Amino acid sequence: MSEILVVGSVAYDTISTPNGKVEKTLGGSANYFSLASSLYSKVNVVGVVGDDYNIDDLEMLKSRKVCVEGLQQMPGKTFHWEGKYEFDMNEAITIETQLNVFESFDPTLPDGYKNSDYVFLANIDPNLQLNVLEQIKEPRLVGADTMNFWISSKKDSLKEVLKKVDVLLINEGEARDLTGNWNTIAAAREICAMGPKGVVIKRGEYGFVMYADGQYFILPAFPVETVIDPTGAGDTFAGGFFGYLAKTKEGFSFSHLKQACIHGCLLASFTVEGFGVESIKSVSWTDVEKRMSNYYKVIAYNS
Amino acid sequence: MSEILVVGSVAYDTISTPNGKVEKTLGGSANYFSLASSLYSKVNVVGVVGDDYNIDDLEMLKSRKVCVEGLQQMPGKTFHWEGKYEFDMNEAITIETQLNVFESFDPTLPDGYKNSDYVFLANIDPNLQLNVLEQIKEPRLVGADTMNFWISSKKDSLKEVLKKVDVLLINEGEARDLTGNWNTIAAAREICAMGPKGVVIKRGEYGFVMYADGQYFILPAFPVETVIDPTGAGDTFAGGFFGYLAKTKEGFSFSHLKQACIHGCLLASFTVEGFGVESIKSVSWTDVEKRMSNYYKVIAYNS
Repeated sequence: MSEILVVGSVAYDTISTPNGKVEKTLGGSANYFSLASSLYSKVNVVGVVGDDYNIDDLEMLKSRKVCVEGLQQMPGKTFHWEGKYEFDMNEAITIETQLNVFESFDPTLPDGYKNSDYVFLANIDPNLQLNVLEQIKEPRLVGADTMNFWISSKKDSLKEVLKKVDVLLINEGEARDLTGNWNTIAAAREICAMGPKGVVIKRGEYGFVMYADGQYFILPAFPVETVIDPTGAGDTFAGGFFGYLAKTKEGFSFSHLKQACIHGCLLASFTVEGFGVESIKSVSWTDVEKRMSNYYKVIAYNS
Repeated sequence: MSEILVVGSVAYDTISTPNGKVEKTLGGSANYFSLASSLYSKVNVVGVVGDDYNIDDLEMLKSRKVCVEGLQQMPGKTFHWEGKYEFDMNEAITIETQLNVFESFDPTLPDGYKNSDYVFLANIDPNLQLNVLEQIKEPRLVGADTMNFWISSKKDSLKEVLKKVDVLLINEGEARDLTGNWNTIAAAREICAMGPKGVVIKRGEYGFVMYADGQYFILPAFPVETVIDPTGAGDTFAGGFFGYLAKTKEGFSFSHLKQACIHGCLLASFTVEGFGVESIKSVSWTDVEKRMSNYYKVIAYNS
């Protein structure tokens, strides 16, 4: 088993959807990613929390094979995001973002983390992504995510990141902002010309487009009849993606990236079935296998 | 080879997209459907045109195995639609609709049409759809499309149509309007409870969701890097769908409907590559086979 390292946000989120509202629930890209990827492999988390961080949340992560040694605690409040979804569950509307302890975060990796094989730079300031990446000795595969805010405010640093990652995993809106191209198929190709060897464009309820080695791999999402809260779906997609690669000890090959996408897609489908981490935190390997089998029935085009 | 009958609009459209503008170009659901389905089988068209209808357009249809005996010519102008697409190619914005000769259209089927095996009631007034259906003796498979306008203005007639069709083919926005449910997966199930044995929800660049026999079949669209004009994509989807069933002489079975969806999906992907019928009118069977082979590479999940 290979180890995965993730750096990203650890947060308390307040989320409203047409299905209800939750206040200050556990969230953040690093948490969603870890809960998904730890189903497959050992996960080392790098992030920062405030003095309001709940010990139960820490214990929950530990109980799922997540190493929290790289989680710094600082005086002040944990990062807070408040957002809402209207009937179109594909688009989150940000109401408020409080950086709090994240504002002065300077990630220092515990020695034990520096040999991680698979590295995921979740959505944070691209300068922090570069900082973390420099501390890792010989990563086998590096992935990253980003968001519109960094695309517009720190484009130069982001371009540096793109040159250093193997796979970029972003959503359709971000692909559009990054390339200026509204066509996702064309945007995927353009992103690979910026540095990454591969790109996975996440399309929410519509699945994903992967482009690598001059080839496309495109599939729909697993059908979910009641989407409760899409928050974290993209991060758990990345978690399933890297989890699969770490478990199988595979590097960059088109056929393994394809399987990684399918795992990402399935993990994301669990996340949207509950508020925050409620659903993903209790998913078992048996659940994944069962859903995989159902997914194959839904997309079986030659039977 | 079985015969297909389609009733729908025959139009001259004015279309603007970010790629340019065309004025009074051949369009209408019956034309798009016929150009796609005639690649597979003989197609009988029922519709109405004005005295401005261009003889070259008629000849073009005839040259593609489309029987135009059921195309009535009436004094006045042909139906006209003007619409535009902005960067989001998934949504047409209607600028103007002139019903013209369509306003007093009373479809009467030539005797030779009454034994058609496959019937597609393209998007027109549901009362006209019922009128046409009553004139057909023993159709093997009946499909229909509709639009938001009829869903809100003629819901009762539309409900009658739904009870008489085997398969409804509509887009996501229409599925939402028909059921009040924003979730496409749930909406598909609800539509089948209204009468149709199966439903295909078209998702534009994202492909389709089919639901029938208590099972889902979901695939993405064929990737097109430059979408010129999405007008008619849904109608050519239906054309490929019914064309495949007519060619193979198959009825309502889940596995054949799956293959029909794939053909629909591919035919639609040609349509969006040109303005109006420009691209679909010159597609050959070799083009379809070549694209099919490429499509299977893009969705190949087990290799």
